[in-house]
Amino acid sequence: MATGKLVNVVTLFWILILVLVSQSVSARKKSLKHLEPCRRLVLYYHDLLFDGVNVANATSATAVNETKLGNFKLGKLVIFDDPVTENSHLLSPPVARAQGFYFYDMKTEYNAWFAYTLVFNSTENKGTLNIMGADLMAADTRDFSVVGGTGDFFMSRGIATITTEDAQGIKYFRLKMDIKLYECY
Amino acid sequence: MATGKLVNVVTLFWILILVLVSQSVSARKKSLKHLEPCRRLVLYYHDLLFDGVNVANATSATAVNETKLGNFKLGKLVIFDDPVTENSHLLSPPVARAQGFYFYDMKTEYNAWFAYTLVFNSTENKGTLNIMGADLMAADTRDFSVVGGTGDFFMSRGIATITTEDAQGIKYFRLKMDIKLYECY
Amino acid sequence: MATGKLVNVVTLFWILILVLVSQSVSARKKSLKHLEPCRRLVLYYHDLLFDGVNVANATSATAVNETKLGNFKLGKLVIFDDPVTENSHLLSPPVARAQGFYFYDMKTEYNAWFAYTLVFNSTENKGTLNIMGADLMAADTRDFSVVGGTGDFFMSRGIATITTEDAQGIKYFRLKMDIKLYECY
Repeated sequence: MATGKLVNVVTLFWILILVLVSQSVSARKKSLKHLEPCRRLVLYYHDLLFDGVNVANATSATAVNETKLGNFKLGKLVIFDDPVTENSHLLSPPVARAQGFYFYDMKTEYNAWFAYTLVFNSTENKGTLNIMGADLMAADTRDFSVVGGTGDFFMSRGIATITTEDAQGIKYFRLKMDIKLYECY
Repeated sequence: MATGKLVNVVTLFWILILVLVSQSVSARKKSLKHLEPCRRLVLYYHDLLFDGVNVANATSATAVNETKLGNFKLGKLVIFDDPVTENSHLLSPPVARAQGFYFYDMKTEYNAWFAYTLVFNSTENKGTLNIMGADLMAADTRDFSVVGGTGDFFMSRGIATITTEDAQGIKYFRLKMDIKLYECY
Repeated sequence: MATGKLVNVVTLFWILILVLVSQSVSARKKSLKHLEPCRRLVLYYHDLLFDGVNVANATSATAVNETKLGNFKLGKLVIFDDPVTENSHLLSPPVARAQGFYFYDMKTEYNAWFAYTLVFNSTENKGTLNIMGADLMAADTRDFSVVGGTGDFFMSRGIATITTEDAQGIKYFRLKMDIKLYECY
């Protein structure tokens, strides 16, 4: 009798150990790839470029002019402090500012590179998200890396999927940012 | 008797499993938010801007001039290789260099954006920390993200809390960097 | 007899718990520092700078000219969309593009700072790796941080060890990038 129960205990023990080990080994992968993001924000970035006259409205300015390599503005560098809203309307109350820069980098087509900080200062969120990546403008969507965060976004990492929603000449464009955080604390 | 001990073993087993599972699930959050950083460094960054004459002393230079958008130097970009010391004295022996850039990005007040590498090459530390973030100059302190590290700081991540300690016109300013690493290897 | 076996079970139990706990505590460190990277890529970066004439071949251009601080091009900023190959030959079919920028940052010797995205679009790999760091050109090798990834490199982090393999005046240089990812998903 006692020996029979002992066998049961040992069997039970091994099954549980196996379950435990398999869980701890696969936890990180599962939590990141197959499960939902631990946090998700859909936000809209509005870039209103300074043209020499629109001081009141402009939120970004060309700091470096394009070079003569190709016809797609390679070398043009824009510094911005752009409003970020929760819907696609430019005049909606901003929930964050996007502070940083982008530049055009390709000879044969329009293509850009971004690095910026989302600065949140609303009742809902305080803190920042730091983002960088290649803006492959020919693609319907492209992914930037969220490489760090502070405040309410302490130590966050994730992916920001970018879509161009509107582009009016060189003066205004709007990006939809679908931000999925996979590391939250 | 034997059965009584068996019950004890089973109970003990379950208690330990529960403790183990709860530990492994909460480990990441606890270790990051509620516990102390795994490593902490308080360092001082000294920026001595080139004015056209002070070649011997200057460690940074304006690479791009400000634009005409606003009156707060929006667009001005400075590239630096600045000394980093363990106390607030400019002439203390540097324990690292800060190599990177900052630019002013706001139309309505002074505000900047930084990306740089702390390059350590002392007996104590060899390696680098890569840092980026919005310098919200109006705030008493602001947080940058430590997004990566190499050498003695292999794969580190964390937060650098920044305080402006001194600012003498445009030629010199000193930042205190309270660097807290929450991922150390 | 039964009691003797019980003792064995308890002993076995404790040994296994100890093994398990020690594994889960040291897992992160071991997997990063002592074990092999979870992914490794050796790639070659070719920078062909625009000189005003070589429009057909050039893949990078000087966007900002050097300042007058020192004699080592401090302040010169280059924007690139450079080919990346699997061997050291410039004319090999590129497996990725490197899009980003570098600038010279030191008064007393050649030294640079890089931030860029490797954009993969081959049958083997699709996605990006985001990289930044100080290019300590005087060192035989130097380490950049891989701070994020997308697509096939979803959420990756790691180290890119850089070696200058060739430098022909200011017009061409080649970097070997030994990319070791320690976080893969």
